[in-house]
Amino acid sequence: MSRGINRQWRLVAHPTGMAKKSDLEWREEPIPVPGDGQVLVRNVYLSLDPTSRVWMNEADSYMPSVRIGEVMRGLTLGVVEQSRDPKLTEGDLVMGLLGWQDFAVADGPSLSRLEKIKPLTAYLGLFNPIIGLTAYVGVLDIAKPKAGETMVVSGAAGAVGSVAGQIGKIKGCKVVGIAGSAEKCRWLTDTLGFDAAINYKTENVLERLQTHCSKGIDIVWENVGGDVFNAELALLNLNARIVLCGMISQYNATDPVAGPANLINVLLKRAQIKGFICLDHMDRADAAMTDLSRWLAAGQIKYRVDVVNGLENAAEAVNKLFDGSNQGKLMVKVSQEP
Amino acid sequence: MSRGINRQWRLVAHPTGMAKKSDLEWREEPIPVPGDGQVLVRNVYLSLDPTSRVWMNEADSYMPSVRIGEVMRGLTLGVVEQSRDPKLTEGDLVMGLLGWQDFAVADGPSLSRLEKIKPLTAYLGLFNPIIGLTAYVGVLDIAKPKAGETMVVSGAAGAVGSVAGQIGKIKGCKVVGIAGSAEKCRWLTDTLGFDAAINYKTENVLERLQTHCSKGIDIVWENVGGDVFNAELALLNLNARIVLCGMISQYNATDPVAGPANLINVLLKRAQIKGFICLDHMDRADAAMTDLSRWLAAGQIKYRVDVVNGLENAAEAVNKLFDGSNQGKLMVKVSQEP
Repeated sequence: MSRGINRQWRLVAHPTGMAKKSDLEWREEPIPVPGDGQVLVRNVYLSLDPTSRVWMNEADSYMPSVRIGEVMRGLTLGVVEQSRDPKLTEGDLVMGLLGWQDFAVADGPSLSRLEKIKPLTAYLGLFNPIIGLTAYVGVLDIAKPKAGETMVVSGAAGAVGSVAGQIGKIKGCKVVGIAGSAEKCRWLTDTLGFDAAINYKTENVLERLQTHCSKGIDIVWENVGGDVFNAELALLNLNARIVLCGMISQYNATDPVAGPANLINVLLKRAQIKGFICLDHMDRADAAMTDLSRWLAAGQIKYRVDVVNGLENAAEAVNKLFDGSNQGKLMVKVSQEP
Repeated sequence: MSRGINRQWRLVAHPTGMAKKSDLEWREEPIPVPGDGQVLVRNVYLSLDPTSRVWMNEADSYMPSVRIGEVMRGLTLGVVEQSRDPKLTEGDLVMGLLGWQDFAVADGPSLSRLEKIKPLTAYLGLFNPIIGLTAYVGVLDIAKPKAGETMVVSGAAGAVGSVAGQIGKIKGCKVVGIAGSAEKCRWLTDTLGFDAAINYKTENVLERLQTHCSKGIDIVWENVGGDVFNAELALLNLNARIVLCGMISQYNATDPVAGPANLINVLLKRAQIKGFICLDHMDRADAAMTDLSRWLAAGQIKYRVDVVNGLENAAEAVNKLFDGSNQGKLMVKVSQEP
């Protein structure tokens, strides 16, 4: 990080298909100065998530899209360098949507003040709304698992899917994960304790689901969409709950995608599909963080992080989420830990 | 009706595509004799519903399919001719799943005893679980409309859709119907008071929805599936509720159907899709019939019936539901009203 300079990635084109480095522009600007009630934050870790790609689109989604010329949106963990908010002090650790840049000025109330836990990567890896709260609310409040039910998780080795599946296990479900490599499948079964894992790149997902879910599927945790989702729909049980958390297979689509032919099973099985977003459930954040801490300490929840060094690598790193090459929660180390 | 003979339609082949007359066989058998606790019922009206076609499939759905050789399943209104159940008397009016035949023997508790209202066709046209309860529960308990919201109903001129849309109007929604003829569209707007109607056979549904639902869609009442459903999904508002009541466009499909490409909007708009079936909500039947009676008397609910004369015509008449030629609730008059 150059002193006095604020390096940034700004969006200069809405991507078509996978994000290209040329859709973003590297800029060096002066470090901004906080106004009254504001703080200057130095970003330490930048979270890269499937939703980053959604935010790059021209069309608004659940949030307004990033406009051309704006600094790319991203959740970061950072350190307060200068404070004009009486509630925050230099050296405080904070989390917020501070973007793909070295420094950001923000209103104090837009930031969450955090404790200095070890390792700090746990914040972006687990203890944040996008990951931990999403998995917690989606499983406990939407899927409402009962012991003995069968839960299928697509994108199961991803940051959210892996936690969702482990919460399913804690609640007594049989959990089957779907992921994109043999290594990820082994991690799901051998380290996380999933009952089975299916490699969608090399196996027939429908056949493997039929084998592993011999009593049908009660809960679908959907991160992917497409053919995998259609296979899951074929095996729904009565009153199944489908938690629609993501459709990562479609975020880079340039043509209309094929919808699920088996959607009629939602009707025949009186099932429910519920789309949701963690931002609507911030009232559950404290409960989520408390339970996740407890489960982490007890060894019932595990996670792993994939840290890319250097803000300059962010524009290329985000595509690791879509080619399946990330292993664990993807984040960029922007500057040294305090 | 021949005296002493029980004419029947029995399923002899699971149809491929539209039901053919040859999938059913006309049989004449002796009128059955009730055992202890049973009654003999003479069927007066036989209900034909989109779900009739679903029941003909080889695969079980929300109920077991009709097996080869069995009398075709159907809801009927009939008169008790002979009773060996102390709770039922000769001449009582009853409703039950008594099938496509002149006479049926049934256990007393499997039947609902009814008052002799005028016209009797109101029972199959409105006051029964498949129609009235479905619309009532789907709108009030699942969609939960708020005044000022926009509701779109596909299959809106059908027996269930027309009632669902009118309940939406009673609850203060703007209601837009989609139907398959100019006559049906006029009936929706001019007689039932829908705010607008779209003829999906001659109009561009997406464009017309964009015009009529300028504030987006809060509630989708889905009877049809396919392209119409996909157009609705494109215009969902935040927290939209999609009541999945039917997918009539797909009941005769012989190949995998195209799923909705816009399903991703359920995620982005935090929407909900809920499949349901009236049988799960029989605890709401009394409330539904009370409110529907009140609304009917007040002119807030209207319905119409399409009565086909003669049990012998049932096998061909059922396809009227799929070619769009029925106008109102389709039923077959099997014998004279008592």
